[in-house]
Amino acid sequence: MPAAMKAPFVSEKLIRFHHCDPAGIVFYPQYFVLFHELLEDWFNRGLEVDYADFVSKERRGLPTVHIDCDFRIPSKIGETVEMRLAVTRIGNTSLTLDVSVLGGGALRVSAHQVLVLISLDDGSTLTIPADLRQRFACFLRQPNDAEGPPCARIEQKG
Amino acid sequence: MPAAMKAPFVSEKLIRFHHCDPAGIVFYPQYFVLFHELLEDWFNRGLEVDYADFVSKERRGLPTVHIDCDFRIPSKIGETVEMRLAVTRIGNTSLTLDVSVLGGGALRVSAHQVLVLISLDDGSTLTIPADLRQRFACFLRQPNDAEGPPCARIEQKG
Amino acid sequence: MPAAMKAPFVSEKLIRFHHCDPAGIVFYPQYFVLFHELLEDWFNRGLEVDYADFVSKERRGLPTVHIDCDFRIPSKIGETVEMRLAVTRIGNTSLTLDVSVLGGGALRVSAHQVLVLISLDDGSTLTIPADLRQRFACFLRQPNDAEGPPCARIEQKG
Amino acid sequence: MPAAMKAPFVSEKLIRFHHCDPAGIVFYPQYFVLFHELLEDWFNRGLEVDYADFVSKERRGLPTVHIDCDFRIPSKIGETVEMRLAVTRIGNTSLTLDVSVLGGGALRVSAHQVLVLISLDDGSTLTIPADLRQRFACFLRQPNDAEGPPCARIEQKG
Repeated sequence: MPAAMKAPFVSEKLIRFHHCDPAGIVFYPQYFVLFHELLEDWFNRGLEVDYADFVSKERRGLPTVHIDCDFRIPSKIGETVEMRLAVTRIGNTSLTLDVSVLGGGALRVSAHQVLVLISLDDGSTLTIPADLRQRFACFLRQPNDAEGPPCARIEQKG
Repeated sequence: MPAAMKAPFVSEKLIRFHHCDPAGIVFYPQYFVLFHELLEDWFNRGLEVDYADFVSKERRGLPTVHIDCDFRIPSKIGETVEMRLAVTRIGNTSLTLDVSVLGGGALRVSAHQVLVLISLDDGSTLTIPADLRQRFACFLRQPNDAEGPPCARIEQKG
Repeated sequence: MPAAMKAPFVSEKLIRFHHCDPAGIVFYPQYFVLFHELLEDWFNRGLEVDYADFVSKERRGLPTVHIDCDFRIPSKIGETVEMRLAVTRIGNTSLTLDVSVLGGGALRVSAHQVLVLISLDDGSTLTIPADLRQRFACFLRQPNDAEGPPCARIEQKG
Repeated sequence: MPAAMKAPFVSEKLIRFHHCDPAGIVFYPQYFVLFHELLEDWFNRGLEVDYADFVSKERRGLPTVHIDCDFRIPSKIGETVEMRLAVTRIGNTSLTLDVSVLGGGALRVSAHQVLVLISLDDGSTLTIPADLRQRFACFLRQPNDAEGPPCARIEQKG
């Protein structure tokens, strides 16, 4: 179990030549590839769940069923942007995330994303197991952090 | 000017090996690449505006500033899906589209997308010129098609 | 079995916005994605073997084990290029292809590619079965076409 | 000028979900995207030439004119591979690289790549300037390293 952490999870990304289009800025579908890299980083370093094992050994997936996204400021090759992820809702089988991209001190992209836990063997929807739910809860966005992050509270119960 | 047409513009796409992920279904960022192919097809065959000239010669672009998207049913390699595009709003500098993906008779993906007309030389926002506005109007979604599509009416005025 | 055909198999491709890099020309890794589209087209329309079934139902794959490629002339957005594929060697488990890209009457890209037949279940190498071998043979490059393509000759034996 | 260094330049890469195909292994065109990331890393951290400035401000490019590549062992999601780059030849306008990918102690992919220096403004070929040539020389593969890497020798002359 990861140590008590607060949302958001942060991962820096370098904007690469291959992310950019003939206009010299990030081609917007590439942001979603970067969002998936962020999800993998969050599993590996935030949730401390090996994403490759999650997919290859446990045969689970988290396909996106909804995304809405605002692209406010374009990003250019060579810029390092800060990508942030916070959990806003943990359903029975689904997970809702706030994802944002910051660069030069400004919000560049903001998104809400809903993912559903499935079995890669048959595509069926799965109930999020307790251990994974508890890990997700560590990254719930808090309106008031005075009492500490939720995973700390959950761990006290354990 | 294209002949009078009704929304939506339709383009069929084959789901390719490279669209699919280790789960064997379309990796969702690839849908947005396909949406961009649909936009290019719409310019070339629907609007009858050469998309390559629009970008390379006129140095104009239509970056996406907002997209929201529901992924309802996954698509697999070898499936041919029908992609549909209709205009829902033509602003001063922006264009709002409804995009959907149908397969096997069912709605698989639906999206609302807002694009803004810019100059590729300096990134500045441009007012949509009258000719382009009239072409966009041919693909406005009609609540009631009894009077014919809007481009027919516009052309009668001309 | 396809009707007697001569190499090469030809498929036209439109150079898309997403193939191009900030220099405004095809980013070279995208050529290899297009080569894979050509392989899929060749299966579906040339060999008359459904590529999706080959992968998804028969669980076979043709990973590339060697490629060498010369990029002579760049391609730009909006150009339609002609992609050609011919078989140059059919081994016990491998297949060697000549792939080329033509545009504006000139050779733009030429490649030699070696692929190996494998099982997608365990990654093991497979002997190319007789039916598939015969189909591949229809696209063998002929030094002298006077006697007709090889698949015609093979079919006469059948 | 970078401190005296020896070839090869090394950069580690995590194999991501989006690099992998329905067979669960790296889709080979994605290796070429990773090769380009390696080139960017080499500029930024090896040559100490900012790659983004090289492209965006100096308006120079290094398109690939030839590549040959052997894919020996597949790579899977979650693996960290070591990518190596060494210079084997510095021509008047071209640069030849040896690129390799190692994983689990074994050589997985090896490639030879020829790139040409061009102007992004008009696509014309450029003579490699002395400063850049000297930086490239630091990464020349040495048959015998007894006398130290070439950049050290060059710097002694300076």
